[in-house]
Amino acid sequence: MSALDLAPLFRFVLVRTSHPGNIGSAARAIRTMGFTRLDLVSPHRFPDPEATALAAGADDVMGAVGLHEGLVDALAGSTFALGLSARRRGVNLPELSPREGVAQALAAAARGEQVAWVFGNERTGLENEELARCHAMVRIPSVEDFSSLNLSQAVQVMAYELRMAMLGDELPEAPPLHEEPPADAEKMERFYEHLAQMLDDIDFHKGRTPTTIMLRLRKLFQRAQMSERELRVLHGIFADAQRMAMLAGQSGRD
Amino acid sequence: MSALDLAPLFRFVLVRTSHPGNIGSAARAIRTMGFTRLDLVSPHRFPDPEATALAAGADDVMGAVGLHEGLVDALAGSTFALGLSARRRGVNLPELSPREGVAQALAAAARGEQVAWVFGNERTGLENEELARCHAMVRIPSVEDFSSLNLSQAVQVMAYELRMAMLGDELPEAPPLHEEPPADAEKMERFYEHLAQMLDDIDFHKGRTPTTIMLRLRKLFQRAQMSERELRVLHGIFADAQRMAMLAGQSGRD
Repeated sequence: MSALDLAPLFRFVLVRTSHPGNIGSAARAIRTMGFTRLDLVSPHRFPDPEATALAAGADDVMGAVGLHEGLVDALAGSTFALGLSARRRGVNLPELSPREGVAQALAAAARGEQVAWVFGNERTGLENEELARCHAMVRIPSVEDFSSLNLSQAVQVMAYELRMAMLGDELPEAPPLHEEPPADAEKMERFYEHLAQMLDDIDFHKGRTPTTIMLRLRKLFQRAQMSERELRVLHGIFADAQRMAMLAGQSGRD
Repeated sequence: MSALDLAPLFRFVLVRTSHPGNIGSAARAIRTMGFTRLDLVSPHRFPDPEATALAAGADDVMGAVGLHEGLVDALAGSTFALGLSARRRGVNLPELSPREGVAQALAAAARGEQVAWVFGNERTGLENEELARCHAMVRIPSVEDFSSLNLSQAVQVMAYELRMAMLGDELPEAPPLHEEPPADAEKMERFYEHLAQMLDDIDFHKGRTPTTIMLRLRKLFQRAQMSERELRVLHGIFADAQRMAMLAGQSGRD
């Protein structure tokens, strides 16, 4: 079983949301990260066309939204609730970073527990009595002088962090730098010979010593780790430059 | 010096944004994470009351927004650009996870480089020729069947990841990739123009469409992150090839 299979154990709970657009945006946000359960506690307006529009096709989430009068109902069946809060208040709850919160939430889900992420009203956040229903508080580490994330942005960040943790700390393997493998040393050597010859033919050196320039160009092209296909393009360019040089030489001789 | 002091080296670039609300939301998103530089490339509507409303008081960001006609202008001065992309396409760029991208971006900033995060249009994303101006592609690991994050949500996730990394205890090890800093976007653009003109002059295309070849060459040279000195060498080579082509042309006419 993969950690991704734990997704149905997570729910996102929005409490007393003022702007229906934020509900739609939150639905889209959790859906992009593989979650589908959204619960609303006393939203100011719902359903609402703006919510539907901003959900942008997250129909499964929107169609299954749970509507509740109080937070306790919305938390039914869940055993671990994390409340998002921008401010430290006189609440006797552990304050976790998003990653710490996600680690604890995943551990709970791995034990089969249902987990809730709880987000308060846009302006006033979670009331103390709502936080009192949570088991921990999560603070997204925003800057002090402008600390308030938009509600759906906070939902996105938490859903993203959760998915990242479920995907495992390590991403599959280091992504290849290119789709095509780099050309081997022998082909690179032929490339440098052609480059040197071409520079000679187009009279690039003009009496300067070619060694330094060739070393510099080697460094550049080695760094680029070119594919065979890219080498062929450059060979073609060099050949045309040489052709021009030859024609120019004939012109000089004529 | 703390990694947080590197914040001014980062800019967020929104390309051809359709909805002004997303611009405002993006301004707020980066501001909550301690960033202030937002650049817009040909936004459909800006300034706009909706953008202002959704910026929710991120006045310093909104007041300093850079407005540009093209991506190259928006990237002026930056030497490392990361393009956000939901899809894997035939683009020969390294594809990084947000955390991998942040690690590389922070390493570049620690060397004093300016770094740009580039976000495409809401519906169409970044065009291939825009991605070709980037050095790496970042994909936020959304689910396959609903992969498109709202634009400002993607901005929030990247700004959040960047801040998390900057809050991390240590600056990443930043072994320089080169001894010399890479040339900026504007100089690279002049380089590509010269390259294109030279290919034309030496009759490299021979009736084939130059677009594909230019994209291929861009990929190669973007990957190499060339220094200004290396650029000068290549400009010199191109000039000589052009000189030969001119002489050859005179020969043809004679």
